[in-house]
Amino acid sequence: MGVNKIYNVGIIGFGGMASNHFKQSKELDRINMKGVFDINPERMEFAKANGMVTYESREALLNDPDIDIVLIATPNDVHREIAIEALRAGKNVLCEKPVTIESWELEEIMKVAAETGKVFTVDQNRRVNKDFVAMRRAVEQGLLGDVYVIESRVEGSRGVPAGWRIDKKQGGGMMLDWGVHLIDQIMYMYDAKVTNVFCKMYSINYPDVDDNFRLTMTLDNGVTAHIEVSTNNFIKHPRWYVLGKDGTLQIDDWDCEGKIIRCKDREDTWSAEIPKSKAGPSKTMAPRSDDSVDIIPISAPEDVVDNLNPTYWQLIDTLDGKCELKIKPEQAMRVIKVMEAAFQSSETGEAIKTDI
Amino acid sequence: MGVNKIYNVGIIGFGGMASNHFKQSKELDRINMKGVFDINPERMEFAKANGMVTYESREALLNDPDIDIVLIATPNDVHREIAIEALRAGKNVLCEKPVTIESWELEEIMKVAAETGKVFTVDQNRRVNKDFVAMRRAVEQGLLGDVYVIESRVEGSRGVPAGWRIDKKQGGGMMLDWGVHLIDQIMYMYDAKVTNVFCKMYSINYPDVDDNFRLTMTLDNGVTAHIEVSTNNFIKHPRWYVLGKDGTLQIDDWDCEGKIIRCKDREDTWSAEIPKSKAGPSKTMAPRSDDSVDIIPISAPEDVVDNLNPTYWQLIDTLDGKCELKIKPEQAMRVIKVMEAAFQSSETGEAIKTDI
Repeated sequence: MGVNKIYNVGIIGFGGMASNHFKQSKELDRINMKGVFDINPERMEFAKANGMVTYESREALLNDPDIDIVLIATPNDVHREIAIEALRAGKNVLCEKPVTIESWELEEIMKVAAETGKVFTVDQNRRVNKDFVAMRRAVEQGLLGDVYVIESRVEGSRGVPAGWRIDKKQGGGMMLDWGVHLIDQIMYMYDAKVTNVFCKMYSINYPDVDDNFRLTMTLDNGVTAHIEVSTNNFIKHPRWYVLGKDGTLQIDDWDCEGKIIRCKDREDTWSAEIPKSKAGPSKTMAPRSDDSVDIIPISAPEDVVDNLNPTYWQLIDTLDGKCELKIKPEQAMRVIKVMEAAFQSSETGEAIKTDI
Repeated sequence: MGVNKIYNVGIIGFGGMASNHFKQSKELDRINMKGVFDINPERMEFAKANGMVTYESREALLNDPDIDIVLIATPNDVHREIAIEALRAGKNVLCEKPVTIESWELEEIMKVAAETGKVFTVDQNRRVNKDFVAMRRAVEQGLLGDVYVIESRVEGSRGVPAGWRIDKKQGGGMMLDWGVHLIDQIMYMYDAKVTNVFCKMYSINYPDVDDNFRLTMTLDNGVTAHIEVSTNNFIKHPRWYVLGKDGTLQIDDWDCEGKIIRCKDREDTWSAEIPKSKAGPSKTMAPRSDDSVDIIPISAPEDVVDNLNPTYWQLIDTLDGKCELKIKPEQAMRVIKVMEAAFQSSETGEAIKTDI
């Protein structure tokens, strides 16, 4: 196939997420969103109105020899069966996250992908979020010294949208929604094993699913990641908060406003007397002198493409034979295994020792 | 004894903390800081210069029949033996926190207190901190609805003072220093059992002790307390952050500036389209409309005495026979047991199931 081949995409499940793919695809000259199958007639009408082919069944879509890539954007409980059918029909597959609900489902998909030689990738696309990239670069530049804690939080107060997202059987809940991304970011950032998972999940407004969770993930490189997703927080913490031996980083929100405060003078001397700080008498918590630290502002990196394009680029490059997949099913598998340990931890109250 | 009796205090260990007691005692007309024993000659000179009796030995202090109360403000590893000697010498005892390093030590003290009929209390004095009282009152007024998470943090960047505080054998480290107070506040606030303890401790700048810890304490009333003490954080989180079903509370610092944001309209409606928020396309994390919440400012309660006086008042009242101790050794015991579980958790990586 020529390197300028345009890849035709067939969409199965044309809800909110696939609509975003459709919009985004207008920027991608190598991608043509050819057609749709959705069980909802309104969504089929919407596809038709947007000039796409509508197939009368999933099979019809999979039997269209023009389709190179199947985008799966259905509820999570049917990703496995659709992915396997699509691969067996000779299609490459881009699957929305979470790739599957349980790890055995992804194992089956990976076996079929290996048998058919087709490409299977997942839309774990938040590796290119500007806030994440800004944090990662600061850490990798060594601005904080050795890092020991990364806090990653996504907080809202509007609850969970109705429909399958509040239904456990269909793969609802925040761990499978945002948790995937936040865990993936940390595992993508470090070449390290996850050795321990402790998680508390809450069902504040939706009894069937976790609408809030707090996850502590221990890596074998000395880093603890604290990941939190909430849908009932009316005041937010910063998006990122990172502790290094030599300084602290904070990024407030998605637009990347933030700063690093670095220690210049660790030996800010102790007086013999215990100072009466606002904390009451305390040496430890007494304020530090301003000239003993440097403040480095953080802003959004301008060279980062923070949308779905990189997900498609890596798929196109792989189909072109140029390079390996960047978002590999093996990586998605590690994320699922952490999530499985998190569910187990929350159910049993135990910290789960892992080798992931 | 008359209700206006002045109680004479003998101080064993006249370091920074006992100096604070000495200063504070000038406000207490029922307390006379009579004399001191300290192994450090400079501290003895300081006591003498301040008009106090200096005893040539611990025994000499304990043998002075004028002494009613012994204040123990030594390093933590000798609290037990001094407390037992003082009780056996017929003295009442006020012990600095942590009461002891391990629970068996306090058990021994409690046995001797019961045998001798003398009063033993502990300076777990941060129950009257304004920030804590402001938080507690807001929760108890029901302003947040059912509370499910309380985050309590004390963060500094100046490390740990040299001396016994960085020596594990002498009871150094942040868990035994600030941890005691922050755990005590939560256990004092709620009549609930602690059923699970997960803790990660770090030795960032002091290899022998925990100079940073992160503790998750699960109560049987549905509340999770997240407690954190740090000595290497160059940017601070809020002092208090509380999640309730109906709202969120934040108190920034010791001076109690803070607010509650309460939900007025939970059904802030979802649009059919996924809004393109700063988070990228997300319904869940899309901002909420301003008129769907109430903002209630928090300020320092003015009726609270936020110093050591209440610790002394409760001891004086008990010695006067007016009422029971408010800071009971049984309460200090529960705090130690949580700390023991925290150390065990940090060493093993396990979450410890408890019945405390």
